[in-house]
Amino acid sequence: MSGFLLGILGGMGPLATVDLMEKIIGQTPAQSDQQHAPVVAWNVPQIADRQQALAGTGPSPLPQMLRGVQQLNRAGASHILIACNTAHHWYGELAAASRAPLLHIADATLDSLRPQRGERIGLIATQGTLDAGWFQQRIAALGGDTLAPSPWEMREWFVPGCYAVKRGDLRGGGELLSRLAEALTARGAARLILACTEVPPAFAAIDSPWRKVSVDPTLALAGAAARLWLAHRDGGGLT
Amino acid sequence: MSGFLLGILGGMGPLATVDLMEKIIGQTPAQSDQQHAPVVAWNVPQIADRQQALAGTGPSPLPQMLRGVQQLNRAGASHILIACNTAHHWYGELAAASRAPLLHIADATLDSLRPQRGERIGLIATQGTLDAGWFQQRIAALGGDTLAPSPWEMREWFVPGCYAVKRGDLRGGGELLSRLAEALTARGAARLILACTEVPPAFAAIDSPWRKVSVDPTLALAGAAARLWLAHRDGGGLT
Repeated sequence: MSGFLLGILGGMGPLATVDLMEKIIGQTPAQSDQQHAPVVAWNVPQIADRQQALAGTGPSPLPQMLRGVQQLNRAGASHILIACNTAHHWYGELAAASRAPLLHIADATLDSLRPQRGERIGLIATQGTLDAGWFQQRIAALGGDTLAPSPWEMREWFVPGCYAVKRGDLRGGGELLSRLAEALTARGAARLILACTEVPPAFAAIDSPWRKVSVDPTLALAGAAARLWLAHRDGGGLT
Repeated sequence: MSGFLLGILGGMGPLATVDLMEKIIGQTPAQSDQQHAPVVAWNVPQIADRQQALAGTGPSPLPQMLRGVQQLNRAGASHILIACNTAHHWYGELAAASRAPLLHIADATLDSLRPQRGERIGLIATQGTLDAGWFQQRIAALGGDTLAPSPWEMREWFVPGCYAVKRGDLRGGGELLSRLAEALTARGAARLILACTEVPPAFAAIDSPWRKVSVDPTLALAGAAARLWLAHRDGGGLT
């Protein structure tokens, strides 16, 4: 094998990593096992809660995330993906500590979203991701507008929906998160970014009608990773 | 985190590893991310084809598998799972080279199957797994009988069905593999062991009626791993 190896910093939650891995495979045209991307996944969920840390009510997850990045580098990762939107809050610190470059999930998402001028994009995300502004800044730079959930919508629908998924209740989570999608669309959102990795599996579990107007950052990140692999594989780097 | 870490030797194929990871999560009662098992997955499919190696028509996959086991040990794995039935052909060599103990997929399967005396169990597996005899020996020791596919059934249904899954055609593979399930059942199999990791996702993709009488070794292995984790977690090993 050549030096190409995708590293996944996972565990946030563990199902989001499985979802990312499956989406990389799904976006890789391949006739055999050997034509799929080599992946090493650090799916260790013993990490301090990201939402609580950013709300100032819990310890920082950074030490455990740095350990994961270190393990992925040691295993020979040539590129690292973070299977969690909120965790990109620590992107700068993680990238600084990594020999392998880190892809950014918001870059991958905007590459596939491409908002039209004046288009309103609904953003379903944790408070940490909303506060960080990565998605809003990139949407504004392309001429679009972001519609974020209200504090009431976050408290009543987003947070309980997200934690329902984390305890395995995908259908219950999907129903709560669909109400938020409906509210954002009613306020004028033409499309939605499902910028929390718990949301796409929850929408899939109930086959939510909002999937049709949604962009899934996990799918976008998987697509960016698959394209890197295909360029390597078909560019002659595969041994 | 304590010293508990599940290592998965994957890539055979890459989707089988994703399936195993998802089934470990699904069999772990948890209220939060942190209560799920820590996993490191070496999902690197650049491994020589196992079926061809055992047929004498290709190189041995052992060197690449040994490298994976070495990487998992280096990452701190406390237990290793092999996400491929056929790859258990090299179980002895891999176990000898590993500090962490390796679970055996046939042990986990028979723990959950428990054949009745005289019960006929259909075995859907690669030629390598059939030749190795792990499943047949364990079934016989418990008083059951094994029904294996005929050479014609292997050539016409099993092999093309399995390679259809590997190139992403889960539905096509599921249809071919269902014909084999039907034939084994018609010959008297009361239950089936889907002892190739490509088969359960293919049956799931078409919601095959044969799932009702089937035992999925991937699910059994995931269950064994989840029980190890729960004993550790709830036994006070979780820090």
